[in-house]
Amino acid sequence: MSSTPPPDPRLHAFGMTLRRIREQRELSIEDLAERSGLSFRGVIYIEHGRRNPSLLTILQLAAGLQVPPTALLEDLG
Amino acid sequence: MSSTPPPDPRLHAFGMTLRRIREQRELSIEDLAERSGLSFRGVIYIEHGRRNPSLLTILQLAAGLQVPPTALLEDLG
Repeated sequence: MSSTPPPDPRLHAFGMTLRRIREQRELSIEDLAERSGLSFRGVIYIEHGRRNPSLLTILQLAAGLQVPPTALLEDLG
Repeated sequence: MSSTPPPDPRLHAFGMTLRRIREQRELSIEDLAERSGLSFRGVIYIEHGRRNPSLLTILQLAAGLQVPPTALLEDLG
């Protein structure tokens, strides 16, 4: 049984920040996917640190959460 | 003669911010490429808004510039 490697800690941290803000905004993953124009699966993978999102995806997520893009990077140093 | 489409305004804005901070730090493109572990060409394309950099690339650039990652997104809303 091949085990998947742990996510890059920086991607994991980004995913945790994304989920924290999403939950603070009382949005479901479906809500965020719809508001940011991303797929449901895409948001899940990002929240679990399994994707290395692009700048434009980060900006779409920030718009969907109605927060400045900087809010999503605050926990990353 | 095929003309290249203008860069996405958000990528263009990111590139301008990157160049501004690099110049403020009196770093050449070679310096930044070396410090961030990116190629010379890669940094040029990003500064010209011709690349949609990933989160990890953004973090590498911030580390190379010795600024917090949020500094690179400040002009993006």
